[in-house]
This record gives sequence, C-alpha cells and structure tokens, in this order.
Amino acid sequence: MNTYSLPNCIALIGAGGFFGTNLARYLSPQIADLRCFGLHQSFPEAMQGLTWVSGDMTASGLVDTLSGCDTVIHLASTSAPGTDLNISADAEANVMASLHLFDMCVAAGVRQVVFISSGGTVYGIPKHVPIPESAPTQPITAYGVAKLVIEKYLAVYARLHGLDYRVLRISNLYGPYQTPAKMQGVVATFLSKALQNEPLEIWGDGKVVRDYVYVEDAAAAVVAAMRYKGVERIFNIGSGLGMSLNEVAATIETLLGRKLEKRYKLGRTVDVPMNILDCSLAKKELDWIALTTFQSGLEKTYSWFKSQS
Amino acid sequence: MNTYSLPNCIALIGAGGFFGTNLARYLSPQIADLRCFGLHQSFPEAMQGLTWVSGDMTASGLVDTLSGCDTVIHLASTSAPGTDLNISADAEANVMASLHLFDMCVAAGVRQVVFISSGGTVYGIPKHVPIPESAPTQPITAYGVAKLVIEKYLAVYARLHGLDYRVLRISNLYGPYQTPAKMQGVVATFLSKALQNEPLEIWGDGKVVRDYVYVEDAAAAVVAAMRYKGVERIFNIGSGLGMSLNEVAATIETLLGRKLEKRYKLGRTVDVPMNILDCSLAKKELDWIALTTFQSGLEKTYSWFKSQS
Repeated sequence: MNTYSLPNCIALIGAGGFFGTNLARYLSPQIADLRCFGLHQSFPEAMQGLTWVSGDMTASGLVDTLSGCDTVIHLASTSAPGTDLNISADAEANVMASLHLFDMCVAAGVRQVVFISSGGTVYGIPKHVPIPESAPTQPITAYGVAKLVIEKYLAVYARLHGLDYRVLRISNLYGPYQTPAKMQGVVATFLSKALQNEPLEIWGDGKVVRDYVYVEDAAAAVVAAMRYKGVERIFNIGSGLGMSLNEVAATIETLLGRKLEKRYKLGRTVDVPMNILDCSLAKKELDWIALTTFQSGLEKTYSWFKSQS
Repeated sequence: MNTYSLPNCIALIGAGGFFGTNLARYLSPQIADLRCFGLHQSFPEAMQGLTWVSGDMTASGLVDTLSGCDTVIHLASTSAPGTDLNISADAEANVMASLHLFDMCVAAGVRQVVFISSGGTVYGIPKHVPIPESAPTQPITAYGVAKLVIEKYLAVYARLHGLDYRVLRISNLYGPYQTPAKMQGVVATFLSKALQNEPLEIWGDGKVVRDYVYVEDAAAAVVAAMRYKGVERIFNIGSGLGMSLNEVAATIETLLGRKLEKRYKLGRTVDVPMNILDCSLAKKELDWIALTTFQSGLEKTYSWFKSQS
C-alpha cells in the first residue's frame, strides 16, 4: 500500500485527558517510543507503564521531549466551559501555546504534526448537513476559532519550515475515561446521571443534533492519518450520522431497560443546532470509517462507567 | 436611505502609516471627534491639526482614548517583510494585540469595529478569479493568516459581547504617503525608482497579477461600511481588475513618456500568482465602487511623489 510505516517515536501532547488517555493506550502497543506529555493525568492507573512527562506545553523543556520524535500528536486544549467570556485569554492559552509548540517541533526536527481539531465547532452553523471539509468555516465560539486558527497556522509552518501536518476534525467523542465533571460530553454526563438515579438535564428541547464517534474509532483515524502519504491534509472524522439529545437518552434507556427522568433547561447560546460530518474524504483517502455503532459504543462506555463506580 | 449617520467620535488605530494617514485626512472634515492613535507618524506634516495619541495598541492607556468613541477603525499591523520567519512573534504582535484592542473596545463601550483586512492575502492561491468573499480562505503567509484570524475572532466578540463589526478585505492599495522604503507597494517602489532614474526590480517574470485600488477609493469604502445598516459583515474592496507587474511598469512608462530599465529577479515564494477581487457585494450592499482609474490614480500618486522629492 502507498502508506508510510508508523513512526518509531511519537510525542503525544495533552496525553492526560479523555482522548489522550485513550490514544496513549491505543498507540502504546504499536509504537516503540511513545512519549506522553501533559499537565496532569486524569486516570493515572490507566497510564501505568507509559512514558510520562508532566508540564505545560509552552515549557521550554518540552523541546527535549520532542527531540528524536518523528511525529507530534497535538491534542492539548483548555476547553473548560466559560473560557468564551475571556476570548483573548483563550487565544493565549490555545493558539499562542500551539504556535510555541510548533516552534519547538521545528527546532527539534520533528517531521509532522497530527492536530486534533474539532469537527463539531470549526464549521459553526452549517447551511447543509452532512458537512464536507470544503464547507465554510464560521465558528461561533472562541474554542472553535482557536481550533481553526491553529489549522491555518499549520499550513504556514508547513510552507515556511517544512513541518508536515495532518488535521483531524473529529466530531463529538465519547467512550471510557470521559468525565462528566468536566462537562466534556453528553454521553458521559447522561450515563453518570443514570447510574446515580438522577434526572438527565437536557439543554433546549433535546432536538440538538450531533455526530457521535466512539473514541477507539477516532484513535484508529489518528493511526490512519500518520500512515497517509497523499496530498490531503484536513479530514472530518465522525460517524456521519446525526443523533439528537433525545435519541441519545432513548438509546441509554434501551440499554438500561428502564425509563429515565428528564429535565429540560434553557438552551445554551454556544450550541449550533445541528452538526453531522461528511466523512467520505477519510474513507477515500485514509481508508477509514467509524466501525462502532452507537449502541455498541454505548455498551462499552457503560461497562467502563460501572467498573469505576 | 437605510443607513446610519456617520459617528461623531471615531478612533483610528494605526493612523500613522500609509493608509492611516490618508484615512485620517479623508475623515477629518466629516467627523467631529477623530482620535488618531499609532506608534509614530510617517508624515507628521500631513497630520497637522489632527488629534494624535502616541502608543502601542496594547497599551492599557488606550482605553481612555477609546472612551466615548462609537466606532474604532483598526488598521494597525506589523507587516514588515520577513516577519513570516517568526510566525509566533507575528501572531503575538498582530492577533493577540488585536484581541487586547477588542477587549478594550468592549470595556470602553465602543459600538463597532471596522477592521481593515487584506483581500490580497486571506484567500491564498485562488481557484478562480475574480474572488468572491465566499471563496475558500487558505492564506499562505503569517500576515494573511493573522488578518483572517482577527476576522474570525471579531465574529465571536460580536456574539459574546455585542461588539458589532465590519471587515474590509482591501486589495493592493496605492497612492500618496506610501513609502518605497518599507516595500509596501509596487507602485510606490516603481515610481520612486523611476524618479531616481534607477532600474525597476521585478520579482519573477512580471506576470504576477494584482488588483490595485486607489487609497482614496478605499477610504470612501470605510465611510460606506460605517454607514451600512445591513446584515453583511465582510466586503472585498478592490478595483475588480487585474494588472500584471509588467502592465504597471508599462502604465508608468506611458505616464512619464519614456522607457524604463527593468531587472527581473527570482520570484518570491510568498507571492500568490494572481489576485483579483470580486467586489459586487460592496457595490450591492454599500453602494460603493472604485471610481479612480489606474491611470488617474497613478497621476495623482506621481504628483505627490514629485512634491516630496
């Protein structure tokens, strides 16, 4: 096949969070020298046996961590709710920190960056779904703008400094190691509430539609992107299917075999009403599709949640 | 007409440079309280009688300058050649500084920002010309990315903080007060060389095509944008006509009535091969078109150059 071999040495920046933990565990058996870097580990027991370096991604010492690495996977992000209120602080923490990371990649001789972007936010409110990569990008949140901006700067680093890159615009991730405390995802939040016999809180009328992708499928997309030799650089990564909050709740009810109490609250202004990704480019170029059905992914996620409680 | 009156109080950020000097002189007779702000004045004698405040646009004291202003026109930019080599420094100086400016606009109760963007760089290498505002935006330089990024963040400031905005993606400006020393524009550079009887230096084969707009026409577009009440926010501002470097040189030869020596040099990698803007949206929505022909604008510019030598 016309693909690269997987690199021997990879640095994972932002490895301690939800996707980072999953990705580290997924890559570890395949990569000789996997270096995990992050502020802290959300699940230290899940990271046992992995090489871990603690720190801020702007720390100058990071250049040592990157030295000898072929590929840097960048998924660090400060995505706490409310950061939108301080747009410039968000830009400093996400955009500027990423550019300093890329400067260090250039200094350390890294060949390529795989950047985990956000298919759920970079497009803003879509005119049509499913959304192809070529659709207009009009993010309505600081989080979405920062992701888009980092993509745009990567193109300039490639042109000026020869730093190659791949961008994965991943849809709404769910799976093990997602924590409801951080309001990261509706699946984690709903499952957690259901396990505690508390009512589900649903913003709006529950008709907001999202594209949910199981975290292991997304990890497989990262591997496919690292192996990809073609000319495309930006890929949507999602299920290609839309599901409303009400449908997510109903699927959980089917899984649990009981009805759940729901409380509807005022909608959030940061929500786009609908997001479904057209993932045909990833299928064609990366030979990647989301293999896990929502029912199956939900079962695995539920098993993990029960093991934690 | 369905337009706003011109504001009584406007702050012009970056007023001391080429376009700033022209814009300040153009607006001054129409605006009761025009406050010009900038690092320094390129042409102090041209700014006589205008209210001038010296400083960096991130200076916290700027909030006093903005207090009571309805509109802020933001055209400050560090566009020195070579900034591309330090992408993160460029982002700090342009993107972050602009966000801090917008923070101060919010704090000072400013109603709207008119942002001077770059029609020549935000699109990158176009698939088709003339380029409409809806074309893909794939800038190939840090300068172009910074302009695009600031546009994207303005949309978030509008949504979160109610700071209204207009973006003018202006093509290649030329006219009085453009200085060849800063390599700001080919018209200034060519005219200056011609006046000194030195050969014109042409990068590449001279077939690079640009859309040249006379600075007074662009100033009129700023006024039209401030008066505009409609829903559009981003406008191309250019002549809508393409002209190659060789054609610019030939037009100068016609004006001077003599042949000029030309030296062709290797092309710059930062150049997109062709850029012509589709300005039909500005015509429809702002009732604006570029009135000055290239021949006429060149004559005025030449007169100014002669008056300086």
